[in-house]
Amino acid sequence: MRPLALGPGAEFDAVRRMLARWGPAASGVGGDTAVLEIPAGERLVVSTDTSVENVHFRRAWLSPAEIGYRATAAALSDLAAAAATPRALLLALTLPRAWRDGLDAIADGVADAARAAGAAIVGGDLTSGELLSLTVTVLGSAAHPLSRAGARAGDVVYLTGRLGGPAAALAAWLAGVAPDPLDRARFAHPVARLREAQWLAARGATAAIDVSDGLVADAGHLAAASGVRIALDLSAAPRTAGTTAIEAGRAGEEYELAATAPAGLDLSGFTREFDLPLTAIGRVTGGPAGVEVVVAGARVDPPMGYNHLSD
Amino acid sequence: MRPLALGPGAEFDAVRRMLARWGPAASGVGGDTAVLEIPAGERLVVSTDTSVENVHFRRAWLSPAEIGYRATAAALSDLAAAAATPRALLLALTLPRAWRDGLDAIADGVADAARAAGAAIVGGDLTSGELLSLTVTVLGSAAHPLSRAGARAGDVVYLTGRLGGPAAALAAWLAGVAPDPLDRARFAHPVARLREAQWLAARGATAAIDVSDGLVADAGHLAAASGVRIALDLSAAPRTAGTTAIEAGRAGEEYELAATAPAGLDLSGFTREFDLPLTAIGRVTGGPAGVEVVVAGARVDPPMGYNHLSD
Repeated sequence: MRPLALGPGAEFDAVRRMLARWGPAASGVGGDTAVLEIPAGERLVVSTDTSVENVHFRRAWLSPAEIGYRATAAALSDLAAAAATPRALLLALTLPRAWRDGLDAIADGVADAARAAGAAIVGGDLTSGELLSLTVTVLGSAAHPLSRAGARAGDVVYLTGRLGGPAAALAAWLAGVAPDPLDRARFAHPVARLREAQWLAARGATAAIDVSDGLVADAGHLAAASGVRIALDLSAAPRTAGTTAIEAGRAGEEYELAATAPAGLDLSGFTREFDLPLTAIGRVTGGPAGVEVVVAGARVDPPMGYNHLSD
Repeated sequence: MRPLALGPGAEFDAVRRMLARWGPAASGVGGDTAVLEIPAGERLVVSTDTSVENVHFRRAWLSPAEIGYRATAAALSDLAAAAATPRALLLALTLPRAWRDGLDAIADGVADAARAAGAAIVGGDLTSGELLSLTVTVLGSAAHPLSRAGARAGDVVYLTGRLGGPAAALAAWLAGVAPDPLDRARFAHPVARLREAQWLAARGATAAIDVSDGLVADAGHLAAASGVRIALDLSAAPRTAGTTAIEAGRAGEEYELAATAPAGLDLSGFTREFDLPLTAIGRVTGGPAGVEVVVAGARVDPPMGYNHLSD
């Protein structure tokens, strides 16, 4: 499909500007609806994710392109957790007057993240408003989507990558100092672990979740959905310099994956394939659904992640 | 699918509250992703639509339930324009502290509109923020979706229903007076013309669009997408009491459909079937893409609808 022609009007001028920048990254945008094909034998996987100014980011922290990229990567991360192949996304953008000069760069950031994931931008909505907000809805497909509900007693809990960078950047900004550039990059340019999840699913992973609410909190969601108990050893979780094990367990805004898989699988090819650690950090057991946490051999209260509504 | 169990946390408590109210209207919500089936032989149709406090509504105008209902019906209206059958929706809700007491009622409104359309609520996102905002993404399917791009020279332009109520309600509120109850009801409880569109598509309609940006503006989008010229006679468009023909052409916030169909079709069963007018209001011609407008036999400048970004 080629983008539909649009009638006159300032809103449509803005959409036209985005379409011109997106070029072949956009497909069929401009009408109110998009029509998609899902490969035969695969199931449709959908998710939606909102990034709001002053809640998920502040204007002083990120460039408009980074805001667009980050919002899109965060949404795509939910497709990664399902081991789904991204197909398409829709962008609902609330653009205040004060942000209009950033529209092109926001659009570029969205397109960069979409292109990196192989997702076409197929539609959206543009409204005015008082604060910048991006709701990205992602559509993917998988023959056998992973869910949070598949973990079984006896499974091993794995973590991709290392934790702590985004939280350290956030802490620095909130303290009024410039974050370490590596920490800042991890906050501004999260990577959805799409290929990594498909690799794990193909080798027998039973469940996965991204740890955007914090490793311990998200392990709790996975445990609740699967009806299992999860024992995590936070000392084992790789982390960025300056991050404690407890901080790594609580750190939000991460887009690494926690995945479960039967014990005894050979997953040693992962790091060679993706140049990324894959670390066993816990076990799935029977018993009441929930999470228990050990640090340096001692049981600790589960450190919970950031929660938007507990402010 | 049954709703996934959720871990602890205030955000998840709020989601649990919504799920409890939604009951069977919700399916699989609680995880970050939803998995859907699309009937064999049908194509997936998706659209997203945002309603923002102080842009699309004000707190003093609508109840929380009406806000939820209206945002959802507005999104579903884009599926109607495609003559698609609604399957599922996702709700991305930005809920300020000042609106938390309204959460149950907002959820009820969303569920009422979803149920009326036969769409399951399959996922969403809940964040805090400074202004209430609802982004509803709708997924539907159709063997042969209608688009804006199918109008052909010689077609007749039809309009469902009558225009003017929502704009009259808006004008009253902005003037500080209570709107007429019927006008208010049309603003607060828009009806997505889903069955009507499928009926028209089955009988040969070539293109459709909802007139939420105003009849003339949306006819312009349809003309641009189809590469045709559309001549509208606004005097012919049914309208609510107190609405002029020009006002009816400009009135936004309407969820009636403009549809094109070949001349000579017998669509006389429509009104009997739906207890709703279906009125020929114009013709599709060749010539440069665009819209021309006649009122009482005289050519007038096309009255354009409300535009969020031209404020």
